Amino acid sequence: VTRLDFWFEFASTYSYPAASRVGALARDAGVTLRFRPFLLGPIFKAQGWNDSPFNIYPAKGRYMWRDLERVCAALSLPLRRPSQFPRNGLLAARVATGLPEQSVEAFAKRVYRASFAEDRDIAEPGVIADCLDGVVPDPAQALEAAQDGAIKARLRETTDEAVELGIFGAPTCSVGRELFWGNDRLEAAVAAARAAGRD
Amino acid sequence: VTRLDFWFEFASTYSYPAASRVGALARDAGVTLRFRPFLLGPIFKAQGWNDSPFNIYPAKGRYMWRDLERVCAALSLPLRRPSQFPRNGLLAARVATGLPEQSVEAFAKRVYRASFAEDRDIAEPGVIADCLDGVVPDPAQALEAAQDGAIKARLRETTDEAVELGIFGAPTCSVGRELFWGNDRLEAAVAAARAAGRD
Repeated sequence: VTRLDFWFEFASTYSYPAASRVGALARDAGVTLRFRPFLLGPIFKAQGWNDSPFNIYPAKGRYMWRDLERVCAALSLPLRRPSQFPRNGLLAARVATGLPEQSVEAFAKRVYRASFAEDRDIAEPGVIADCLDGVVPDPAQALEAAQDGAIKARLRETTDEAVELGIFGAPTCSVGRELFWGNDRLEAAVAAARAAGRD
Repeated sequence: VTRLDFWFEFASTYSYPAASRVGALARDAGVTLRFRPFLLGPIFKAQGWNDSPFNIYPAKGRYMWRDLERVCAALSLPLRRPSQFPRNGLLAARVATGLPEQSVEAFAKRVYRASFAEDRDIAEPGVIADCLDGVVPDPAQALEAAQDGAIKARLRETTDEAVELGIFGAPTCSVGRELFWGNDRLEAAVAAARAAGRD
Protein backbone atom coordinates (compact mmCIF):
# COMPACT_ATOMS: atom_id res chain seq x y z
CA VAL A 1 0.00 0.00 0.00
CA THR A 2 1.36 3.43 -0.91
CA ARG A 3 1.31 5.88 1.92
CA LEU A 4 0.49 9.54 1.82
CA ASP A 5 2.36 11.61 4.40
CA PHE A 6 0.65 14.86 5.42
CA TRP A 7 3.26 17.25 6.81
CA PHE A 8 1.81 20.04 8.90
CA GLU A 9 2.84 22.79 11.30
CA PHE A 10 0.44 24.09 13.93
CA ALA A 11 1.22 27.76 13.21
CA SER A 12 0.53 27.34 9.49
CA THR A 13 -2.67 28.93 8.26
CA TYR A 14 -3.40 26.81 5.19
CA SER A 15 -2.69 23.67 7.24
CA TYR A 16 -5.99 24.41 9.00
CA PRO A 17 -8.33 23.79 6.02
CA ALA A 18 -6.00 21.07 4.72
CA ALA A 19 -6.02 19.13 8.02
CA SER A 20 -9.81 19.37 8.09
CA ARG A 21 -10.25 17.62 4.75
CA VAL A 22 -7.24 15.42 3.94
CA GLY A 23 -8.52 12.52 6.07
CA ALA A 24 -11.80 12.17 4.20
CA LEU A 25 -10.07 12.55 0.82
CA ALA A 26 -7.58 9.79 1.64
CA ARG A 27 -10.20 7.45 3.09
CA ASP A 28 -12.49 7.90 0.06
CA ALA A 29 -9.55 7.01 -2.19
CA GLY A 30 -8.43 4.04 -0.10
CA VAL A 31 -5.08 5.71 0.57
CA THR A 32 -3.17 5.14 3.82
CA LEU A 33 -2.55 8.49 5.48
CA ARG A 34 -0.03 9.50 8.12
CA PHE A 35 -0.13 12.86 9.91
CA ARG A 36 3.44 14.18 10.31
CA PRO A 37 3.81 17.13 12.68
CA PHE A 38 7.00 19.10 12.04
CA LEU A 39 8.41 22.56 12.73
CA LEU A 40 8.70 25.32 10.14
CA GLY A 41 10.65 27.59 12.49
CA PRO A 42 14.07 25.96 11.92
CA ILE A 43 13.41 25.80 8.15
CA PHE A 44 12.48 29.49 8.00
CA LYS A 45 15.46 30.43 10.20
CA ALA A 46 17.80 28.63 7.80
CA GLN A 47 16.54 30.92 5.02
CA GLY A 48 17.08 33.98 7.16
CA TRP A 49 13.50 34.50 8.35
CA ASN A 50 12.84 35.10 12.03
CA ASP A 51 9.11 35.53 11.56
CA SER A 52 6.36 34.21 9.32
CA PRO A 53 6.85 35.29 5.69
CA PHE A 54 3.26 36.56 5.91
CA ASN A 55 4.47 39.11 8.48
CA ILE A 56 7.77 39.85 6.72
CA TYR A 57 5.97 40.53 3.39
CA PRO A 58 2.84 42.50 4.32
CA ALA A 59 1.17 42.45 0.86
CA LYS A 60 1.46 38.67 0.78
CA GLY A 61 0.13 38.49 4.35
CA ARG A 62 -2.89 40.69 3.61
CA TYR A 63 -3.69 38.55 0.60
CA MET A 64 -3.28 35.31 2.53
CA TRP A 65 -5.79 36.31 5.22
CA ARG A 66 -8.35 37.28 2.60
CA ASP A 67 -7.74 34.13 0.57
CA LEU A 68 -7.92 31.93 3.68
CA GLU A 69 -11.26 33.56 4.49
CA ARG A 70 -12.57 32.56 1.06
CA VAL A 71 -11.13 29.03 1.30
CA CYS A 72 -12.64 28.45 4.76
CA ALA A 73 -15.99 29.94 3.73
CA ALA A 74 -16.16 27.52 0.78
CA LEU A 75 -15.59 24.62 3.22
CA SER A 76 -17.98 26.07 5.85
CA LEU A 77 -15.06 26.12 8.29
CA PRO A 78 -15.24 28.79 10.99
CA LEU A 79 -12.34 31.26 10.90
CA ARG A 80 -11.39 34.01 13.32
CA ARG A 81 -8.10 35.72 12.63
CA PRO A 82 -5.81 34.97 15.58
CA SER A 83 -5.00 38.02 17.70
CA GLN A 84 -1.38 36.86 17.63
CA PHE A 85 0.27 35.40 14.56
CA PRO A 86 2.07 33.14 14.27
CA ARG A 87 1.10 31.22 17.37
CA ASN A 88 3.85 29.14 18.94
CA GLY A 89 3.04 25.57 17.92
CA LEU A 90 6.01 23.86 19.61
CA LEU A 91 4.07 22.35 22.53
CA ALA A 92 1.29 21.12 20.24
CA ALA A 93 3.84 19.59 17.85
CA ARG A 94 5.60 17.78 20.70
CA VAL A 95 2.30 16.46 22.06
CA ALA A 96 1.27 15.28 18.57
CA THR A 97 4.63 13.56 18.17
CA GLY A 98 4.05 11.57 21.34
CA LEU A 99 0.49 10.46 20.54
CA PRO A 100 -0.46 7.08 19.11
CA GLU A 101 -0.61 7.44 15.33
CA GLN A 102 -4.38 6.97 15.09
CA SER A 103 -5.04 9.90 17.47
CA VAL A 104 -2.96 12.57 15.74
CA GLU A 105 -5.56 13.61 13.15
CA ALA A 106 -8.30 14.19 15.74
CA PHE A 107 -5.90 16.09 18.00
CA ALA A 108 -4.60 18.23 15.14
CA LYS A 109 -8.11 19.22 14.08
CA ARG A 110 -8.90 20.28 17.65
CA VAL A 111 -5.73 22.37 17.87
CA TYR A 112 -6.41 24.11 14.54
CA ARG A 113 -9.95 24.84 15.62
CA ALA A 114 -8.69 26.32 18.91
CA SER A 115 -6.12 28.46 17.10
CA PHE A 116 -7.96 29.61 13.97
CA ALA A 117 -11.63 29.52 14.97
CA GLU A 118 -11.51 30.30 18.70
CA ASP A 119 -8.40 32.49 18.90
CA ARG A 120 -6.99 30.50 21.81
CA ASP A 121 -3.26 30.40 22.55
CA ILE A 122 -2.11 26.90 21.68
CA ALA A 123 1.19 27.52 23.51
CA GLU A 124 -0.83 27.23 26.75
CA PRO A 125 -0.85 23.74 28.32
CA GLY A 126 -4.46 24.25 29.46
CA VAL A 127 -5.58 24.85 25.86
CA ILE A 128 -3.72 21.75 24.68
CA ALA A 129 -5.26 19.74 27.53
CA ASP A 130 -8.70 20.78 26.24
CA CYS A 131 -7.71 19.66 22.74
CA LEU A 132 -6.65 16.26 24.11
CA ASP A 133 -9.89 15.81 26.00
CA GLY A 134 -11.82 12.94 24.43
CA VAL A 135 -8.94 12.21 22.06
CA VAL A 136 -6.76 10.26 24.51
CA PRO A 137 -7.74 8.62 27.81
CA ASP A 138 -5.26 10.66 29.87
CA PRO A 139 -4.60 14.24 28.64
CA ALA A 140 -2.32 15.07 31.58
CA GLN A 141 -0.12 12.09 30.81
CA ALA A 142 0.05 13.06 27.09
CA LEU A 143 1.09 16.60 28.05
CA GLU A 144 3.77 15.28 30.39
CA ALA A 145 5.11 12.86 27.77
CA ALA A 146 5.66 15.83 25.46
CA GLN A 147 8.43 17.04 27.79
CA ASP A 148 10.32 13.78 27.38
CA GLY A 149 13.74 14.13 25.74
CA ALA A 150 12.98 11.24 23.38
CA ILE A 151 9.85 12.98 22.06
CA LYS A 152 11.70 16.27 21.59
CA ALA A 153 14.42 14.41 19.68
CA ARG A 154 11.81 12.64 17.54
CA LEU A 155 10.24 15.95 16.53
CA ARG A 156 13.68 17.28 15.56
CA GLU A 157 14.25 14.14 13.49
CA THR A 158 10.90 14.54 11.76
CA THR A 159 11.82 18.14 10.89
CA ASP A 160 15.19 16.96 9.57
CA GLU A 161 13.37 14.38 7.45
CA ALA A 162 11.12 17.14 6.05
CA VAL A 163 14.16 19.23 5.11
CA GLU A 164 15.81 16.19 3.53
CA LEU A 165 12.70 15.62 1.40
CA GLY A 166 12.87 19.24 0.22
CA ILE A 167 9.91 20.52 2.21
CA PHE A 168 9.91 24.32 2.60
CA GLY A 169 6.37 25.11 3.71
CA ALA A 170 3.19 23.65 5.15
CA PRO A 171 1.02 21.84 4.52
CA THR A 172 2.94 19.51 2.23
CA CYS A 173 1.92 16.03 1.13
CA SER A 174 4.56 13.51 0.13
CA VAL A 175 4.12 10.32 -1.84
CA GLY A 176 7.51 8.64 -1.91
CA ARG A 177 9.79 11.58 -2.74
CA GLU A 178 7.14 13.46 -4.74
CA LEU A 179 5.93 16.64 -3.01
CA PHE A 180 2.61 18.44 -3.18
CA TRP A 181 2.66 21.81 -1.47
CA GLY A 182 -0.41 23.53 -0.12
CA ASN A 183 -4.07 22.98 0.55
CA ASP A 184 -4.57 23.39 -3.22
CA ARG A 185 -2.60 20.20 -3.96
CA LEU A 186 -4.35 17.71 -1.66
CA GLU A 187 -6.41 16.21 -4.48
CA ALA A 188 -3.33 15.79 -6.71
CA ALA A 189 -1.43 14.16 -3.83
CA VAL A 190 -4.24 11.70 -3.09
CA ALA A 191 -4.53 10.85 -6.80
CA ALA A 192 -0.76 10.25 -6.99
CA ALA A 193 -0.86 7.98 -3.92
CA ARG A 194 -3.74 6.02 -5.38
CA ALA A 195 -1.98 5.66 -8.74
CA ALA A 196 1.24 4.56 -7.02
CA GLY A 197 -0.72 1.96 -5.06
CA ARG A 198 -2.02 0.41 -8.29
CA ASP A 199 1.48 -0.13 -9.70
CA VAL B 1 -20.08 44.64 -17.18
CA THR B 2 -17.55 43.65 -14.53
CA ARG B 3 -14.04 43.33 -15.79
CA LEU B 4 -11.44 40.78 -14.91
CA ASP B 5 -7.88 42.09 -15.04
CA PHE B 6 -5.20 39.47 -15.62
CA TRP B 7 -1.85 40.78 -14.33
CA PHE B 8 1.14 38.95 -15.72
CA GLU B 9 4.92 39.19 -15.94
CA PHE B 10 6.83 37.57 -18.79
CA ALA B 11 9.49 36.06 -16.52
CA SER B 12 6.86 34.41 -14.30
CA THR B 13 6.61 30.65 -14.63
CA TYR B 14 3.01 30.09 -13.53
CA SER B 15 1.90 32.97 -15.75
CA TYR B 16 2.63 30.62 -18.67
CA PRO B 17 -0.16 28.06 -18.01
CA ALA B 18 -2.42 30.82 -16.68
CA ALA B 19 -2.08 32.97 -19.82
CA SER B 20 -2.83 29.92 -21.93
CA ARG B 21 -6.20 29.28 -20.33
CA VAL B 22 -7.60 32.48 -18.79
CA GLY B 23 -9.00 33.71 -22.11
CA ALA B 24 -11.18 30.65 -22.72
CA LEU B 25 -12.34 30.62 -19.09
CA ALA B 26 -13.41 34.27 -19.26
CA ARG B 27 -15.09 33.93 -22.64
CA ASP B 28 -17.04 30.84 -21.53
CA ALA B 29 -18.26 32.79 -18.49
CA GLY B 30 -19.10 35.93 -20.46
CA VAL B 31 -16.58 37.94 -18.49
CA THR B 32 -14.67 40.87 -20.02
CA LEU B 33 -10.97 40.23 -19.72
CA ARG B 34 -8.03 42.62 -19.89
CA PHE B 35 -4.40 41.46 -20.08
CA ARG B 36 -2.25 43.72 -17.89
CA PRO B 37 1.51 43.35 -18.41
CA PHE B 38 3.51 44.62 -15.43
CA LEU B 39 6.98 44.18 -13.92
CA LEU B 40 7.73 42.08 -10.85
CA GLY B 41 11.34 43.27 -10.68
CA PRO B 42 10.63 46.58 -8.90
CA ILE B 43 8.19 44.81 -6.53
CA PHE B 44 10.75 42.14 -5.64
CA LYS B 45 13.50 44.76 -5.24
CA ALA B 46 11.32 46.67 -2.77
CA GLN B 47 11.22 43.51 -0.60
CA GLY B 48 14.97 43.14 -0.80
CA TRP B 49 15.14 40.50 -3.55
CA ASN B 50 17.54 40.96 -6.44
CA ASP B 51 16.65 37.66 -8.06
CA SER B 52 13.65 35.39 -8.43
CA PRO B 53 12.56 33.94 -5.07
CA PHE B 54 12.74 30.56 -6.82
CA ASN B 55 16.50 31.10 -7.13
CA ILE B 56 16.93 32.68 -3.70
CA TYR B 57 15.13 29.76 -2.01
CA PRO B 58 16.39 26.62 -3.78
CA ALA B 59 13.98 24.11 -2.18
CA LYS B 60 11.05 26.26 -3.30
CA GLY B 61 12.58 26.57 -6.76
CA ARG B 62 13.11 22.82 -7.14
CA TYR B 63 9.52 22.23 -6.11
CA MET B 64 8.19 24.89 -8.48
CA TRP B 65 9.84 23.36 -11.55
CA ARG B 66 8.46 19.92 -10.72
CA ASP B 67 5.00 21.31 -9.97
CA LEU B 68 5.01 23.38 -13.17
CA GLU B 69 5.87 20.22 -15.07
CA ARG B 70 2.81 18.49 -13.63
CA VAL B 71 0.58 21.53 -14.23
CA CYS B 72 1.68 21.86 -17.87
CA ALA B 73 1.39 18.10 -18.49
CA ALA B 74 -2.21 18.17 -17.24
CA LEU B 75 -2.94 20.98 -19.74
CA SER B 76 -0.94 19.29 -22.55
CA LEU B 77 1.22 22.42 -22.68
CA PRO B 78 4.80 21.87 -23.85
CA LEU B 79 7.42 22.84 -21.27
CA ARG B 80 11.19 23.02 -21.55
CA ARG B 81 12.98 24.46 -18.56
CA PRO B 82 14.66 27.68 -19.73
CA SER B 83 18.45 27.50 -19.76
CA GLN B 84 18.44 30.90 -18.06
CA PHE B 85 15.97 31.85 -15.34
CA PRO B 86 14.50 34.32 -14.91
CA ARG B 87 14.51 35.65 -18.45
CA ASN B 88 14.49 39.42 -18.78
CA GLY B 89 10.90 40.27 -19.76
CA LEU B 90 11.30 44.05 -19.94
CA LEU B 91 11.26 44.35 -23.74
CA ALA B 92 8.28 42.00 -24.06
CA ALA B 93 6.38 43.94 -21.38
CA ARG B 94 7.04 47.24 -23.14
CA VAL B 95 5.91 45.82 -26.49
CA ALA B 96 2.76 44.37 -24.88
CA THR B 97 2.05 47.76 -23.28
CA GLY B 98 2.12 49.44 -26.68
CA LEU B 99 -0.11 46.93 -28.48
CA PRO B 100 -3.80 47.42 -29.16
CA GLU B 101 -5.70 45.77 -26.30
CA GLN B 102 -7.17 43.00 -28.44
CA SER B 103 -3.70 41.82 -29.54
CA VAL B 104 -2.06 41.45 -26.13
CA GLU B 105 -3.39 37.98 -25.33
CA ALA B 106 -2.16 36.44 -28.60
CA PHE B 107 1.23 38.15 -28.25
CA ALA B 108 1.61 37.06 -24.63
CA LYS B 109 0.88 33.44 -25.47
CA ARG B 110 3.53 33.52 -28.21
CA VAL B 111 6.11 35.01 -25.84
CA TYR B 112 5.41 32.44 -23.13
CA ARG B 113 5.69 29.66 -25.68
CA ALA B 114 9.04 31.04 -26.90
CA SER B 115 10.35 31.32 -23.34
CA PHE B 116 9.01 28.19 -21.64
CA ALA B 117 8.56 25.70 -24.50
CA GLU B 118 11.30 26.72 -26.94
CA ASP B 119 13.94 28.10 -24.54
CA ARG B 120 14.40 31.24 -26.59
CA ASP B 121 15.70 34.47 -25.07
CA ILE B 122 12.75 36.87 -25.01
CA ALA B 123 15.10 39.79 -24.30
CA GLU B 124 16.22 39.50 -27.96
CA PRO B 125 14.36 41.84 -30.36
CA GLY B 126 14.48 39.15 -33.06
CA VAL B 127 12.62 36.69 -30.82
CA ILE B 128 10.01 39.31 -29.99
CA ALA B 129 9.65 40.16 -33.69
CA ASP B 130 8.85 36.47 -34.32
CA CYS B 131 6.25 36.58 -31.54
CA LEU B 132 4.64 39.64 -33.16
CA ASP B 133 4.53 38.00 -36.57
CA GLY B 134 0.90 37.43 -37.52
CA VAL B 135 -0.29 39.20 -34.35
CA VAL B 136 0.13 42.76 -35.63
CA PRO B 137 0.44 44.03 -39.23
CA ASP B 138 3.85 45.64 -38.63
CA PRO B 139 6.13 43.88 -36.06
CA ALA B 140 9.04 46.28 -36.67
CA GLN B 141 6.84 49.26 -35.89
CA ALA B 142 5.52 47.58 -32.71
CA LEU B 143 9.10 46.91 -31.57
CA GLU B 144 10.09 50.50 -32.25
CA ALA B 145 7.07 51.88 -30.41
CA ALA B 146 8.21 49.97 -27.31
CA GLN B 147 11.19 52.35 -27.04
CA ASP B 148 8.90 55.34 -26.82
CA GLY B 149 9.11 57.26 -23.54
CA ALA B 150 5.34 57.32 -23.23
CA ILE B 151 5.14 53.51 -23.42
CA LYS B 152 7.91 53.11 -20.86
CA ALA B 153 6.07 55.51 -18.56
CA ARG B 154 2.82 53.63 -19.06
CA LEU B 155 4.43 50.34 -18.03
CA ARG B 156 5.79 52.00 -14.89
CA GLU B 157 2.30 53.34 -14.14
CA THR B 158 0.78 49.89 -14.62
CA THR B 159 3.35 48.46 -12.20
CA ASP B 160 2.53 51.23 -9.69
CA GLU B 161 -1.16 50.38 -10.07
CA ALA B 162 -0.37 46.71 -9.34
CA VAL B 163 1.51 47.69 -6.18
CA GLU B 164 -1.32 49.98 -5.13
CA LEU B 165 -3.80 47.08 -5.52
CA GLY B 166 -1.58 44.95 -3.26
CA ILE B 167 -0.21 42.68 -5.97
CA PHE B 168 2.99 40.88 -4.92
CA GLY B 169 3.33 38.09 -7.49
CA ALA B 170 2.19 36.86 -10.88
CA PRO B 171 -0.12 35.85 -12.27
CA THR B 172 -2.76 37.74 -10.30
CA CYS B 173 -6.37 38.34 -11.29
CA SER B 174 -8.24 41.33 -9.94
CA VAL B 175 -11.97 41.94 -9.86
CA GLY B 176 -12.44 45.41 -8.46
CA ARG B 177 -10.03 45.39 -5.51
CA GLU B 178 -10.38 41.66 -4.87
CA LEU B 179 -7.22 39.71 -5.73
CA PHE B 180 -6.76 36.12 -6.84
CA TRP B 181 -3.13 35.04 -6.89
CA GLY B 182 -1.82 32.23 -9.03
CA ASN B 183 -2.79 29.89 -11.80
CA ASP B 184 -4.74 27.94 -9.14
CA ARG B 185 -7.15 30.85 -8.59
CA LEU B 186 -8.26 31.59 -12.18
CA GLU B 187 -11.54 29.74 -11.77
CA ALA B 188 -12.33 31.57 -8.53
CA ALA B 189 -11.51 34.91 -10.16
CA VAL B 190 -13.74 34.25 -13.18
CA ALA B 191 -16.57 33.13 -10.87
CA ALA B 192 -16.18 36.32 -8.82
CA ALA B 193 -16.25 38.49 -11.95
CA ARG B 194 -19.36 36.73 -13.18
CA ALA B 195 -21.08 37.08 -9.80
CA ALA B 196 -20.15 40.79 -9.63
CA GLY B 197 -21.58 41.28 -13.13
CA ARG B 198 -24.94 39.91 -11.99
CA ASP B 199 -25.25 42.40 -9.12
